[in-house]
Amino acid sequence: MSLNTFGHLFRVTTWGESHGPALGATVDGCPPGVALDEAKLQHWLDRRKPGQNKYTTQRQEPDAVRILSGMYEGRTTGTPLQLMIENTDQRSKDYGDIAQKFRPGHADITYWQKYGLRDPRGGGRSSARETAARVAAGGVARAVLADLVPGIAITGYMVQMGRLRADRDRFDMAEIGRNPFWSPDAAAAAIWAEHLDELRKSGNSVGAVIEVVASGVPAGLGAPIYGKMDSELAAAMMSINAVKGVEIGAGMGAAELTGTENADEIFAGEGGRPRFSSNHAGGILGGITTGQDIVLRFAVKPTSSILSPRRTITVTGEETEIVTKGRHDPCVGIRAVPVGEAMMACVILDQFLMHRGQTGRV
Amino acid sequence: MSLNTFGHLFRVTTWGESHGPALGATVDGCPPGVALDEAKLQHWLDRRKPGQNKYTTQRQEPDAVRILSGMYEGRTTGTPLQLMIENTDQRSKDYGDIAQKFRPGHADITYWQKYGLRDPRGGGRSSARETAARVAAGGVARAVLADLVPGIAITGYMVQMGRLRADRDRFDMAEIGRNPFWSPDAAAAAIWAEHLDELRKSGNSVGAVIEVVASGVPAGLGAPIYGKMDSELAAAMMSINAVKGVEIGAGMGAAELTGTENADEIFAGEGGRPRFSSNHAGGILGGITTGQDIVLRFAVKPTSSILSPRRTITVTGEETEIVTKGRHDPCVGIRAVPVGEAMMACVILDQFLMHRGQTGRV
Amino acid sequence: MSLNTFGHLFRVTTWGESHGPALGATVDGCPPGVALDEAKLQHWLDRRKPGQNKYTTQRQEPDAVRILSGMYEGRTTGTPLQLMIENTDQRSKDYGDIAQKFRPGHADITYWQKYGLRDPRGGGRSSARETAARVAAGGVARAVLADLVPGIAITGYMVQMGRLRADRDRFDMAEIGRNPFWSPDAAAAAIWAEHLDELRKSGNSVGAVIEVVASGVPAGLGAPIYGKMDSELAAAMMSINAVKGVEIGAGMGAAELTGTENADEIFAGEGGRPRFSSNHAGGILGGITTGQDIVLRFAVKPTSSILSPRRTITVTGEETEIVTKGRHDPCVGIRAVPVGEAMMACVILDQFLMHRGQTGRV
Amino acid sequence: MSLNTFGHLFRVTTWGESHGPALGATVDGCPPGVALDEAKLQHWLDRRKPGQNKYTTQRQEPDAVRILSGMYEGRTTGTPLQLMIENTDQRSKDYGDIAQKFRPGHADITYWQKYGLRDPRGGGRSSARETAARVAAGGVARAVLADLVPGIAITGYMVQMGRLRADRDRFDMAEIGRNPFWSPDAAAAAIWAEHLDELRKSGNSVGAVIEVVASGVPAGLGAPIYGKMDSELAAAMMSINAVKGVEIGAGMGAAELTGTENADEIFAGEGGRPRFSSNHAGGILGGITTGQDIVLRFAVKPTSSILSPRRTITVTGEETEIVTKGRHDPCVGIRAVPVGEAMMACVILDQFLMHRGQTGRV
Repeated sequence: MSLNTFGHLFRVTTWGESHGPALGATVDGCPPGVALDEAKLQHWLDRRKPGQNKYTTQRQEPDAVRILSGMYEGRTTGTPLQLMIENTDQRSKDYGDIAQKFRPGHADITYWQKYGLRDPRGGGRSSARETAARVAAGGVARAVLADLVPGIAITGYMVQMGRLRADRDRFDMAEIGRNPFWSPDAAAAAIWAEHLDELRKSGNSVGAVIEVVASGVPAGLGAPIYGKMDSELAAAMMSINAVKGVEIGAGMGAAELTGTENADEIFAGEGGRPRFSSNHAGGILGGITTGQDIVLRFAVKPTSSILSPRRTITVTGEETEIVTKGRHDPCVGIRAVPVGEAMMACVILDQFLMHRGQTGRV
Repeated sequence: MSLNTFGHLFRVTTWGESHGPALGATVDGCPPGVALDEAKLQHWLDRRKPGQNKYTTQRQEPDAVRILSGMYEGRTTGTPLQLMIENTDQRSKDYGDIAQKFRPGHADITYWQKYGLRDPRGGGRSSARETAARVAAGGVARAVLADLVPGIAITGYMVQMGRLRADRDRFDMAEIGRNPFWSPDAAAAAIWAEHLDELRKSGNSVGAVIEVVASGVPAGLGAPIYGKMDSELAAAMMSINAVKGVEIGAGMGAAELTGTENADEIFAGEGGRPRFSSNHAGGILGGITTGQDIVLRFAVKPTSSILSPRRTITVTGEETEIVTKGRHDPCVGIRAVPVGEAMMACVILDQFLMHRGQTGRV
Repeated sequence: MSLNTFGHLFRVTTWGESHGPALGATVDGCPPGVALDEAKLQHWLDRRKPGQNKYTTQRQEPDAVRILSGMYEGRTTGTPLQLMIENTDQRSKDYGDIAQKFRPGHADITYWQKYGLRDPRGGGRSSARETAARVAAGGVARAVLADLVPGIAITGYMVQMGRLRADRDRFDMAEIGRNPFWSPDAAAAAIWAEHLDELRKSGNSVGAVIEVVASGVPAGLGAPIYGKMDSELAAAMMSINAVKGVEIGAGMGAAELTGTENADEIFAGEGGRPRFSSNHAGGILGGITTGQDIVLRFAVKPTSSILSPRRTITVTGEETEIVTKGRHDPCVGIRAVPVGEAMMACVILDQFLMHRGQTGRV
Repeated sequence: MSLNTFGHLFRVTTWGESHGPALGATVDGCPPGVALDEAKLQHWLDRRKPGQNKYTTQRQEPDAVRILSGMYEGRTTGTPLQLMIENTDQRSKDYGDIAQKFRPGHADITYWQKYGLRDPRGGGRSSARETAARVAAGGVARAVLADLVPGIAITGYMVQMGRLRADRDRFDMAEIGRNPFWSPDAAAAAIWAEHLDELRKSGNSVGAVIEVVASGVPAGLGAPIYGKMDSELAAAMMSINAVKGVEIGAGMGAAELTGTENADEIFAGEGGRPRFSSNHAGGILGGITTGQDIVLRFAVKPTSSILSPRRTITVTGEETEIVTKGRHDPCVGIRAVPVGEAMMACVILDQFLMHRGQTGRV
């Protein structure tokens, strides 16, 4: 990963700011001959789209994606795909105060520190709007994976909001699409709804934990030592706005296990493939996939743009207070779900192509 | 990060297996004119060296590093440094069983799945011996940083072993070098010693959490969006053997915070620099350093090579049982401390050079 | 260089086809704070624009560039610039025959061999229209270089058309803009005009040699061994459509020289800088700039799309004949001049940033 | 290509100086399971080895390569190969004068300008000894290609020394190994021998042109737009010491052709493959291989280290004269032949892997 590009053979470069005319993703290295159209990408973008329920920003963006290149007669040609999303609802007047003050917990100050100037309109490049481009790119990755690895499935969902955790005993994957939190635990979703209503009313926000699972992933993907599947996934997830932690399988909790507890015992499975007694590894050993589900979680911090006043300084260094008005998600974790899925799809496809390139074993 | 190389301008490529004649790191892009010698690197290698206390493998390796290139009259020339460590204690007979069976929780099976063959001697490339090369490279990074960013300090220590956590109220950084666990909490170290003795006797192992802190880091380092400082650090730490989770600042716990709790309020500090009321951000906002301490933690799973028998399969797919003899650390987290520091040093230097390249602002 | 991206710190990714809705360049790693606007880029695009004289295609394209991102209040922000050029004159009916047959000497057949399908409209991605995006990116590079290296100048011109060579004794750089061939030799330009008229009438085309010179380049740029300035320039020029040879300084002719002839003797120059007796090196020794002018030449083959019938096969493998109608330049070398300049500008800037990053010596 | 690494999936990083303890190549991304041993690599190194005839330096170096990693039981494991060559004949006393003065036409001065210091012993990193590492890496590439693309052959030979050109009508490929110049024209070799004797006696040197041909290359290799096969080859050849020009197929001479002359007409060939009437394209169209022979040539300038006195300056800027004693090749083009072959092998393999990765079509 480097600057605004990630991936090795399947490379995604995103561009664009929150309040510029457009943003998008340039997708390079896409395999040729894959059936694709804008509707396939729009499907995923619509899941991330703002304003879908009262828990996400009321900014009205259709987030309509156009494919400007890399296609011919409904198939990818192997040349770069340009996926462009025009910004239509750019209420810049909302952001006057932000131009002069730094929001605590936000990238406002660091862009200023790094570049000596910044585009303050809606957070500019640091806005979570950039993730729309990733979701579009992830849609391409999913379409390619559907061809190359039939049966692969990538699913994200929320497992924790604030201190409130979902209960795995209640998990029903069919519930994910039926509540605004992408929760497989319908009861948790109801509790979170109430909690978030309160927070929103009090001008506050809250963090969350998202889990993303990929099933049907072939064994052998991942490029040790420094392109390990888990290393690449960690970088990908940590690059999402507001993410502060990433864990694979047993994750941070692996520290609490003993060797006998942690070892996923191996048995002879179907078709000559190994079968494992458990999945503390989260589907990855030594940076290479085992064929088990890849399981990762990432933590999203609470939105920094809140109505509660916080102490800060101005761009000229004077101490002051800031209250962020405007249309901000009280829990950015919600919309991080499709983004995490998209990043997972891109990383897996990239590693698949790398593996096919080096070993020819697919 | 890609295959066996990490970094953009300061690039480290490691090579070598546990039981081959040697292993090492090729360090490219090193700034010229930096005073360096083998003793400076050996200092860091000695901290990671096996056999220093009863809690690490009794394999006797001097881990003596030689600098084969990139130096002239005691200074770096700007051309690649080759850092080579010869393997002297390669008791291959220890590993006979491993050649035919896969250790549960180990990369044995995935290297086999990926490449169709593997070097089973001591785990081959997947052995933690590879991390010696990183520590050598990290020594180079530290020497350069000492020139470019006087006052920078990078310190790692253990904060948790199994379920036993160190107590931050007892932290005394001077203690770190005085116990075998790099613990700033002397009391915790004593408890861990006892715990580990028991585990070792019972043929078991345990996980740990390591914290690494970099202080004195300039603001403005990190290359958004996909070369964010936290993204690069997450990839770097996740690439270390046995690491299953990485978190920055408040980390996974950020999910539990509200926006008002999480926001590190900003005040006018000394020399025109901002001062923050807290450091939930772990020194990084929007992927760019704030000038506060970078604080990260990573979780290391328990060693997979244990004396307790586990169910597994052979390379030909038959179910069997495995007991791993040999000289294995009961808690690999201990020796992960200097490795985490080394990775942090390399990433910070790389980002420093990238930032100087793009912006000239240093 | 890799797929559709070139550059290390200043990275340009181009996208788009001849007859798609748009094409463009994503420019990443641009230094912040540089004054820029669309007019500055349009200046360079207008030099490459088709239909400016009877020697270039009569396709009417305004080639109007829009900057969609990476700017705020007239300055670059350090985030990616998206430079988009809409295709307005896409007369696809011209290209019917090409869809079924491969033009000899053209990429038609190899895209088919590589990808199994291709976009035949106007050559799709292999069309020279792609070079418009490079010229736009080169305009960004020039704007940055004007800030970082005042006094740098990059100038391209034609030195040979077919067997007709310009005469260096008649060179007057002021003439370059006054004739359709970017020729510093006005007499040669007149002869070429006549020659090209004849070729065009006979349904034929011709090759050319372009020279590009960069003066005012600082010494020390270039990243040995595999990122040498001449290596990067060679790759950059060879990536331009129809280029079959690249040479630096004495170039292919260096083979004919003896050591005494070739050595550019060194004397003490002004300001402590070396002065050289000659410039057979073309400003580059060991892959690093000397401070002399960088001098390179590249050869462009004749246009493959010609009215004279040629033997070929169809996409289904039957032998046939092809006559390429449509609006093609009889000498693509003419429009390659601003493209060569643009590539030179991008490579020099990238190497400048790399050098500043690694050494801090600028 | 970047700093000291080239390649995308098959990546070669070279390290080491002329007079350090050793030099070598780290080869990453090598496909697993390929039979390899040191003898296979030594075969190619012996062709480049100095002191084999009176036309190459009399430095006595066995150039014995050791494979330190990446192998198990005679096969590559897919992990990095470290290929090390120890320097045994380091007569540093020869180089005293060079430490204080810059050889005209040599990288002495630019390394100084770039890095502010340099290793003057034998030219340090800029010495042609670095090419031994490439030849070793090329040996690995050849072994892999032999597995993946049976029938591929890569052959280099000299076609011009000074103004004396070989005559293609006399070409007999069997002659290449029978004369010190790798010439397929035995008569030319005899003339060159005489010419070089004279030059050597007069303390002078001379340039040369090398041609490298790859036959049996599959169609479809090459990654447009910026990873074109010709672009990658141009970069690879230009990175070889003393190379000043690179051309593919008709090369610089393509400028002299008309469209009708240049077009390689296409016919239906055997096995459904196209057959071409000629090969002006040098086997590459649009940056992608056609299946015809890849044909390239590169020009090597005369050795800068000559006995004839030349004007220069000292490191402190005073004007002086230099005579380079020591053991230098009067025509470095001779030993560039195996180096050019090696680079060709590495680039083709890398592109093969990239193509397999992206398209799966092999």
